[in-house]
Amino acid sequence: MTITAVIMAGGKGERFWPKSRTHLPKQFLNISGNKSMIQQTISRLENLIDIKQIFIVTNELYAELIRAQIPHLPHDNIIIEPIGRNTAPCVGLASIIIEAKYPDSTMVVLPSDHIIENEDGFIKILKTAVEVAQKDNNLVTLGIKPVYPETGYGYIESTKQIQHINELEVHKVNKFVEKPDFQTAQEYLASGNFFWNSGIFIWKTSVIRNYIKLFMPEMHDLLETMKCAFNKEDKNQVIRSEFIKMPDQSIDYGIMEKAENIYVIPCVFGWDDVGSWTALDRINDRDENGNVIKGNILNIDTKRCIIESNGKLIATLGIEDLIVVDTEDVTLICTKDKAQEVKLLLKELRTQKLEQYL
Amino acid sequence: MTITAVIMAGGKGERFWPKSRTHLPKQFLNISGNKSMIQQTISRLENLIDIKQIFIVTNELYAELIRAQIPHLPHDNIIIEPIGRNTAPCVGLASIIIEAKYPDSTMVVLPSDHIIENEDGFIKILKTAVEVAQKDNNLVTLGIKPVYPETGYGYIESTKQIQHINELEVHKVNKFVEKPDFQTAQEYLASGNFFWNSGIFIWKTSVIRNYIKLFMPEMHDLLETMKCAFNKEDKNQVIRSEFIKMPDQSIDYGIMEKAENIYVIPCVFGWDDVGSWTALDRINDRDENGNVIKGNILNIDTKRCIIESNGKLIATLGIEDLIVVDTEDVTLICTKDKAQEVKLLLKELRTQKLEQYL
Repeated sequence: MTITAVIMAGGKGERFWPKSRTHLPKQFLNISGNKSMIQQTISRLENLIDIKQIFIVTNELYAELIRAQIPHLPHDNIIIEPIGRNTAPCVGLASIIIEAKYPDSTMVVLPSDHIIENEDGFIKILKTAVEVAQKDNNLVTLGIKPVYPETGYGYIESTKQIQHINELEVHKVNKFVEKPDFQTAQEYLASGNFFWNSGIFIWKTSVIRNYIKLFMPEMHDLLETMKCAFNKEDKNQVIRSEFIKMPDQSIDYGIMEKAENIYVIPCVFGWDDVGSWTALDRINDRDENGNVIKGNILNIDTKRCIIESNGKLIATLGIEDLIVVDTEDVTLICTKDKAQEVKLLLKELRTQKLEQYL
Repeated sequence: MTITAVIMAGGKGERFWPKSRTHLPKQFLNISGNKSMIQQTISRLENLIDIKQIFIVTNELYAELIRAQIPHLPHDNIIIEPIGRNTAPCVGLASIIIEAKYPDSTMVVLPSDHIIENEDGFIKILKTAVEVAQKDNNLVTLGIKPVYPETGYGYIESTKQIQHINELEVHKVNKFVEKPDFQTAQEYLASGNFFWNSGIFIWKTSVIRNYIKLFMPEMHDLLETMKCAFNKEDKNQVIRSEFIKMPDQSIDYGIMEKAENIYVIPCVFGWDDVGSWTALDRINDRDENGNVIKGNILNIDTKRCIIESNGKLIATLGIEDLIVVDTEDVTLICTKDKAQEVKLLLKELRTQKLEQYL
């Protein structure tokens, strides 16, 4: 059976502002290593899936960036969302396009901007996930074994029903749960059967189509209308007109929280969602004072800071637990504990009509 | 009797780095208002003293800046120190040059980089100081009434011997004291007869010359050698060769701590030495969160910070009690309590041979 991939690359990466910008969001930046995050995602997948079978869902703005960064990707494999919706419409649109080309494929759905250290481990797990997805009507997801009580992620609770396939544990899922508070996150961590929701899903295209029909019938109808227009001249107009009617729902909420037959494979392949600037603490080496430093920096009495220069000298004295990011036209200075709230600055820029800084 | 002025303008203003730079130190910057600090100092004095009688002691590097910023100052009134020494050699050199032009003047010696809010009050006090200096062999200094227990200034202790001249108190000085620790500064503040040493001195040229002869005889001899060369071709070589033999001593240590007949006039004319970035807290209005903000700034959850942009957007989130100064090639981020230690960064830049940033 054919394996296809759907990379979701429409995000704005706002919590990585000011380096991540409207015209060049996080997935197109080199956050770690010499390649952009989406280039790394593609390379990783190509160990299992031919580039012809890899699809990227994004919005109009980023199509050119994708063509430039991944020149060997067939242009038709760039799926343009008419407007930014949530993950359910994204998966829905991709599923009908893929179904038309590969009527019997197993889809791997994954974000474009995550770091995975152990690529061999990832591929091994993906192969097993595909194997599980090809049985019955299973939905499979990769769960990250939590290493600290993170409150910024959704979690997946597994049952005691565990199979061993290819030396990997495959757990039947009990339920998907929303981002917990700190105490709950601590309990999840201690319990051993809660996993971080990686946003990576594996299923047969036909199976997800059936689940959409079952749990999101209105979206299903919109997708059917689009599909009927595929060979017609007004295809793009129909996709546009129907897509904007789609619900702003995640695939987690729309399907995963309601479906049966969900399996999670616990993973320890060095995963990070690079969700905000504090991720740099996790994915980089720190100096003897706990700082993560990049570029032209002079620091004295500086502890546990993340500092990135764009060429200009950044000189720090006495500061602790700060994020300092200098770009060509913006310098961000933010406490680490506010890293998740960088969007507040963007909101204020919009209010003040300073869109040039977004 | 003629009144002359000696403005000491050879300082580097290192604690105002990175805005104050080797090629453009603090006294030539607009820290408050529309004029540079030295331009403000000159304007202030011109209410009492003709520009022809105002002399500026500086080093070679800044002569051109002074000519540009104060075009109506006679070029001969710029006195070049061959090397940067302390205030005693500076005053000594100025005294022999002024003596040659104005044999019987009363000199006002003052820094180039202080802020004085009440200019009328300042001139009134200066006139009284000149009056006191012209009697006997008095040395006069202006003392600032302390408003908080500052540990960064020297203090002047007055005696109970107080005259009233022109509605002003004129106290006989007991002694000059070095920078105190915090507890001592608190005691000084409570006592009522300790004043901040403003570095502003008033004396007859002949009187300071005599005191130099008495307390700094070696420096006196060097000055005499220079004076003998004034009408000779090798004048500049002699000044250079003798000046470098001068002691690295302040006029406070060399003369004021040893002399008799010293009077202090307590002042309340809104004085600030603008000694470091935290001075901006004192001399500027603050916003409702206690911030002093200048330029293109977006701040959220930001408290008691001093932030200055050079055009680039500085966006802050969650920070408190920080100094952020952005210039064309350097951004400084420093806690307020380390403001006095900015020189440590400059020292490190020298060690790393990064002189371009000094």
